[in-house]
Amino acid sequence: MKIVILGGDGYLGWATAMHLSARGHEVTVVDNYLRRRLSRELDREALIPVPNLNQRVEIWRALGGREIAVRIGDITDYGFLKSVVTAAAPDGIIHYAEQPSAPYSMIDQQHSALTVSNNLMATHNAVFAVRECAPACQIVKLGTMGEYGTPNIDIEEGYLTVEHKGRSHKFLYPKTPGSIYHLTKVQDSDLLYFAARVWDLAITDLNQGPVYGLETDEARDDRLAPLFSYDDVFGTVLNRFVVQAVANVPLTVYGKGGQTRGYLNIRDTLQCVELALKAPAKRGEFRVFNQFTETFSVNDLAEHVVRVAKNAGLRVEAKSIPNPRREAEDHYYNPANTGLIDLGLKPNLLTDEVIAGMIAYVQRHSSRIRTDLMQPRVKW
Amino acid sequence: MKIVILGGDGYLGWATAMHLSARGHEVTVVDNYLRRRLSRELDREALIPVPNLNQRVEIWRALGGREIAVRIGDITDYGFLKSVVTAAAPDGIIHYAEQPSAPYSMIDQQHSALTVSNNLMATHNAVFAVRECAPACQIVKLGTMGEYGTPNIDIEEGYLTVEHKGRSHKFLYPKTPGSIYHLTKVQDSDLLYFAARVWDLAITDLNQGPVYGLETDEARDDRLAPLFSYDDVFGTVLNRFVVQAVANVPLTVYGKGGQTRGYLNIRDTLQCVELALKAPAKRGEFRVFNQFTETFSVNDLAEHVVRVAKNAGLRVEAKSIPNPRREAEDHYYNPANTGLIDLGLKPNLLTDEVIAGMIAYVQRHSSRIRTDLMQPRVKW
Repeated sequence: MKIVILGGDGYLGWATAMHLSARGHEVTVVDNYLRRRLSRELDREALIPVPNLNQRVEIWRALGGREIAVRIGDITDYGFLKSVVTAAAPDGIIHYAEQPSAPYSMIDQQHSALTVSNNLMATHNAVFAVRECAPACQIVKLGTMGEYGTPNIDIEEGYLTVEHKGRSHKFLYPKTPGSIYHLTKVQDSDLLYFAARVWDLAITDLNQGPVYGLETDEARDDRLAPLFSYDDVFGTVLNRFVVQAVANVPLTVYGKGGQTRGYLNIRDTLQCVELALKAPAKRGEFRVFNQFTETFSVNDLAEHVVRVAKNAGLRVEAKSIPNPRREAEDHYYNPANTGLIDLGLKPNLLTDEVIAGMIAYVQRHSSRIRTDLMQPRVKW
Repeated sequence: MKIVILGGDGYLGWATAMHLSARGHEVTVVDNYLRRRLSRELDREALIPVPNLNQRVEIWRALGGREIAVRIGDITDYGFLKSVVTAAAPDGIIHYAEQPSAPYSMIDQQHSALTVSNNLMATHNAVFAVRECAPACQIVKLGTMGEYGTPNIDIEEGYLTVEHKGRSHKFLYPKTPGSIYHLTKVQDSDLLYFAARVWDLAITDLNQGPVYGLETDEARDDRLAPLFSYDDVFGTVLNRFVVQAVANVPLTVYGKGGQTRGYLNIRDTLQCVELALKAPAKRGEFRVFNQFTETFSVNDLAEHVVRVAKNAGLRVEAKSIPNPRREAEDHYYNPANTGLIDLGLKPNLLTDEVIAGMIAYVQRHSSRIRTDLMQPRVKW
């Protein structure tokens, strides 16, 4: 297949590019380095310095990989995106190209405005570019489980059939996001649902939980490592805990630690995206999958990392700190996730070995850990 | 009360300004003339030429009205909006400042992008300006009944309590908008709900149906008339029908004409907004009212206008034309609207006299009607 990856430079985008390239797909990666720029501006750079996209593509090719095309530009510039889609004539577009951090979006008006305008216009333009230039192309959009919030009923996959006063209607599942970033993903989903209903586009929305991990089959060289963040703004919780364990600083549990979410290994992100591409949504279909493999509370994760780290000889403890976020710390959480399993997903679960592997990987780069970046400084 | 009206130049904004000014409130109107610019660009100008805001404020004052402050600027410029809110120190902000046309938003990528970026950033900045500069100020936001779409169950006022697998949760009512414009209103509502939940703002969302009418108590001079549109892009259906009747062209019924919506008189918009200001939402509350007084199908409206127009001696007929929109033409529709009635709304219903009054008003301006502007040219 011919695949365009919007946001191909990011934590997941580049790993996805190699994964699909290794399987024979013709891949074009598109990025404007926004994520790198924002990390630099906040002085929260990734753990492992990674070459730019052109260099990574060259390293990938030299190590026996296939050609990956690179287009550097901003997809909120519609002319640029149209030129990319026209030239690539893709069968599938994977859309990762968003400001991905909840804390970033909550810093102040300026950072919130960047998040809203960047994320919504990126998705808006992706929809229009497909409609105008490649209407049969499937859009595979990365959403987030955080769109749902923590309702007191089961979280179904995308839709909810409501019985009300003797009548029935199937709605897009109502969402209650907890940050401006999560809100933009809800707003994206509303737009994508509209584009499927009204313009007959084929769209899969992957409501992904927090991703952990650094290693994928294709990243055989540190220069091909993902953009791995561990700070309070861009780092997801398990990745941050592993780095804290290696750095011998307490694991920062926000509040009571009862916050429960669905998690998945970065390897499973790659599987899920590939499964969605291979069994595409139909024209006019807005297909939603909840993309996670296991649910854990923050306390579960902290205890697991502490146990494995101690076995690895590290001194480590978890420490509750005042929750910088307005969120429920103790809540019902029962989300469905059968859709991707039914498509063939074989989960890589969070075993002791996986955590031990992450610890060992981070230890090789421990000289670059900055312990001043892991205390939350954005509050809401 | 001190009131800021964002979008104070528009069809409803200016009428609201006079209404509140007449009742002794300190009113500041804010506008960037976007709506006038878009009408001019599409060659679809309002029926009655109206002076600019500074001139209208001067006419209002000279006719015995009170002072209304004018701030011309773009609220997507956050610095400008902050200066307005800081200077006015309002008790309430009425937010009309959006691109208000569904067909406009559906012309192409460029017009859709303007709608999305303008509407979302306007609301975004309003939220931040209140949060930073006037946190106790209530935001009264004009949404639309079109946010809901036409679900097969009753439309409640803002929220829906869902029973599911033996558990229960109260959600913001799930929305299924039918145009990019309506989508932006849904996205606004999601943001406003967030701002109430997470930042404790006091917000009332008025999900308004299509408004009709030209006359309000305060517009005693044609120079104070509202920006009244009758064309296919900016005109609401009943206003357009009245102008078609006067112009002796067939009333354009889209498709089967079974599309049913909740309607209200412009006088009732003014009442509703004032009621919401006087009995404000609490801090942390996102209060939603469905703002309409009666439901009609398009056929109901066409038949009513035809009957009254014939009584007025006009030759007139309704004519079904292919529906330019993707929408249900025959559907269940039972929306609740008790909230504003409970607050004291006294509806001005759509009587023969009201339609006859609109016809007479438009007849005085019939020389300016352009019959080439009423056939739909935007299709989706």
